[in-house]
Amino acid sequence: MAEKKDSQISINELAVFCKKKGFVFPSSEIYNGLSGFWDFGPLGVELFNNIRASWWRNFVHNRRDMVGLDASIISHPRTWKASGHLESFSDISIQCSKCKKINKIDKAEIGKAVCEFCGGALDASTAKEIKLLFPVPIGSDGMTAYLRGETAQGMFTDFKQVAETMRMKLPFGIAQVGSCFRNEIAPRDFLFRCREFHIAELEFFINPEEKKCALLDDEHRNLRLRLLDAKSQESGSAALGALRDATIRQMVEEGLLGEWHAYWLAEQVMWYLSTGLEPERIKIRQHIRSELSHYSSATFDIDYEYPFGSKELGGIANRGQYDLSRHMKESGESMEYFDEATKKKVIPRVIEPTFGMERAFLAILVSAYNYDKERGNIVLKIKPELAPVKVAVFPLLSNKPELTNIAAAVYCELARDFNCIYDRSGSIGRRYARQDEIGTPFCITVDFDSIEKRDVTIRDRDSTKQVRVLIPELKGTIRALISGEKKFSELL
Amino acid sequence: MAEKKDSQISINELAVFCKKKGFVFPSSEIYNGLSGFWDFGPLGVELFNNIRASWWRNFVHNRRDMVGLDASIISHPRTWKASGHLESFSDISIQCSKCKKINKIDKAEIGKAVCEFCGGALDASTAKEIKLLFPVPIGSDGMTAYLRGETAQGMFTDFKQVAETMRMKLPFGIAQVGSCFRNEIAPRDFLFRCREFHIAELEFFINPEEKKCALLDDEHRNLRLRLLDAKSQESGSAALGALRDATIRQMVEEGLLGEWHAYWLAEQVMWYLSTGLEPERIKIRQHIRSELSHYSSATFDIDYEYPFGSKELGGIANRGQYDLSRHMKESGESMEYFDEATKKKVIPRVIEPTFGMERAFLAILVSAYNYDKERGNIVLKIKPELAPVKVAVFPLLSNKPELTNIAAAVYCELARDFNCIYDRSGSIGRRYARQDEIGTPFCITVDFDSIEKRDVTIRDRDSTKQVRVLIPELKGTIRALISGEKKFSELL
Repeated sequence: MAEKKDSQISINELAVFCKKKGFVFPSSEIYNGLSGFWDFGPLGVELFNNIRASWWRNFVHNRRDMVGLDASIISHPRTWKASGHLESFSDISIQCSKCKKINKIDKAEIGKAVCEFCGGALDASTAKEIKLLFPVPIGSDGMTAYLRGETAQGMFTDFKQVAETMRMKLPFGIAQVGSCFRNEIAPRDFLFRCREFHIAELEFFINPEEKKCALLDDEHRNLRLRLLDAKSQESGSAALGALRDATIRQMVEEGLLGEWHAYWLAEQVMWYLSTGLEPERIKIRQHIRSELSHYSSATFDIDYEYPFGSKELGGIANRGQYDLSRHMKESGESMEYFDEATKKKVIPRVIEPTFGMERAFLAILVSAYNYDKERGNIVLKIKPELAPVKVAVFPLLSNKPELTNIAAAVYCELARDFNCIYDRSGSIGRRYARQDEIGTPFCITVDFDSIEKRDVTIRDRDSTKQVRVLIPELKGTIRALISGEKKFSELL
Repeated sequence: MAEKKDSQISINELAVFCKKKGFVFPSSEIYNGLSGFWDFGPLGVELFNNIRASWWRNFVHNRRDMVGLDASIISHPRTWKASGHLESFSDISIQCSKCKKINKIDKAEIGKAVCEFCGGALDASTAKEIKLLFPVPIGSDGMTAYLRGETAQGMFTDFKQVAETMRMKLPFGIAQVGSCFRNEIAPRDFLFRCREFHIAELEFFINPEEKKCALLDDEHRNLRLRLLDAKSQESGSAALGALRDATIRQMVEEGLLGEWHAYWLAEQVMWYLSTGLEPERIKIRQHIRSELSHYSSATFDIDYEYPFGSKELGGIANRGQYDLSRHMKESGESMEYFDEATKKKVIPRVIEPTFGMERAFLAILVSAYNYDKERGNIVLKIKPELAPVKVAVFPLLSNKPELTNIAAAVYCELARDFNCIYDRSGSIGRRYARQDEIGTPFCITVDFDSIEKRDVTIRDRDSTKQVRVLIPELKGTIRALISGEKKFSELL
């Protein structure tokens, strides 16, 4: 991280960069915007879709014990009564006596927190509870439903249908990615705290008797994390001073969390690392008792070092039997599952890893952002698998049909499989720089040699090195480079 | 179509099938459901994602003149004032005097329409206007925003930002797929008319002077469609009797629509056909003047022969300069674009093909559904590219580690690239039948020959034929079969 300090970007600079390059636009900007709402531009939607696809591949397609779901955003209001959100899902809006700005705090922080803008005292008389779920009137008879504040509830209400139709056996999981909505008091830090956003989460259902996790192997156990445990925070020792290194193995041995919770924490961090996030920016923070959500018996935040500080990237909660039991009571429908292994009916307990997708998107951009002094331009070092544009195709000159015809044919062939850009304007150097700035890993140039030799150059974003590849072999080569089966250096 | 009559499925049977097989569940069923809301189950979300990906690849990645966008679901309320939806986007709820059921009709139909349930007279005194946009209170000061009723407006409000950041030149398009919400008076016909659903649409921006479409080639012009034009409908001749065959070329020559409108209608139909929809079930219906949306100067519905009749699958509207002009007026921001080709500032005109994604999902299922008498089970003949599960892997016997180890390894290798199922329970015949029913195109069996020969059998869903393939060649073979580069019959 040290060598990258030069190109450290502030969150406001990142927002400007994202707007200028077509990643993210303020929603409704022609109407002066709407606080907490953003639009993914042409490059942003590609990056976002790639992050989402990586998550789905890793947690759904690559696993035999997981299936996907896409439950509706609006569901029956009793869902949110049963889940406890109607009662408990709120924040406190409170004004600073000094700078007069509105702060958002948790209930437990009244009388303790200070203003996050100026450090002044918060005026307790202005404290007001704000419900986070957005109400929506449905039909013509005035029924009030709610926009979901988390995807989780769809996985609980459909639990039995999924288990039975898909013949799932405990332990197994249901995964979902989708839009969520929360009426945040103070949206801020660009995409970090929004009113409309995406969550990817999975509910993993386990026989409550099953304390051992057969999936927890040495790769998980040896994963080393920077940890801030609840005890250190509760004892009042300065939070960062209490940060220590711990492996998953040590965390389990210390009794901080059970094996299944530990397994999923490791899996979650491993996926984050696979997207290019920097391990030294990740911190695991155990929730202290008073901040636990109403449904959780143990939660860990996975914090990331953003330009505005170390903040929550994702989290993992032990929801126990809370949700299934509550829905069973509210609906009168059985949520018991017959476990063939033990021949007993059980209400499974649940481990829930949650991934804020806009937060992952931000962390990936922050980590990828580099200003390259030598080149004199930004180089966005996004993993090829996630890059919004995989390949840019250039004819060396724009006015020579013998070049543009080949370039257009190469573009069309590659565009069937990958998101590509065709660019024929400006010098080759200018065109490379444009692609560096948006993170395109490979640029292909058709030059005069290409006419005879039927080959093209591939230029690598990170090393700027070039190699010639025969056109018939191009697609296979690009596919292997994007998937990581082959490294660019192996072609040299 | 004639030979498929035996397996024609009613919409209620399809809903039962979708629930039983894990495609679609009624939302919040444990709370007796919520009318107009549905959840995609584990197979449904895969099929839906594949349809969406096919659309995106065809209309965004494969084109140089199109970029994607993912604008927020909630946007500034002035967006919907400018678009005219706040004023005009409503239906009439009206009660039948005979059966007392609530009907949904358009304003223009008051005094004309009869009850769609019993054919009785509708009681005009019960007519009530219902606004289709769902209001949502934002922030703590009571501002009312709306859930979007179409994706289109995000493309209009962001038009300038997209054009400039992506250096787009007229003509070009912006494409989007996402959730939309309408407070439908009478949700019905399973996924066909919902309150929460997905629209894929694109706005194609054209210089208003540019009447010729250079992209309209013979493949488009020769496309033959079943057409019901406005004139036949207005003249009162029986609608179906007036149905006639017409090519796109004839439609343009008759002046029914302009070249750009014709080009996009052809592109739209061609994508529908690529998903496996049956050409003889498609009908193009030109809107008569009185039913045109407030923003449209010419619209065609693309209807499909569903089990409940020929109904709208998608549509294509000529929105002209309506939306950009309205937003320019309401916001005071220029929506003019400098066209380099003509060196003039223009407000582009817009052609908009719209695809109801749940309607495509339903049409694909209806068309794929076959009851195979000989096999004694349903065979869902979905195109391999769209099939929710691509491959099922079976060890011949479940209790022989020498088979299950190979099968598990084959599964793991294929699961990196494709959605796969591993199934070791029941007879091979039973396992084939299970996969036929959910549309899995290829089943792989590991038998005793596999141990020595390092090969497996691939069984083709549609022909039930089998072929042996070496394990190292399996992934490449499956990839070619799914993409359509290779046909199964070529392997025999």
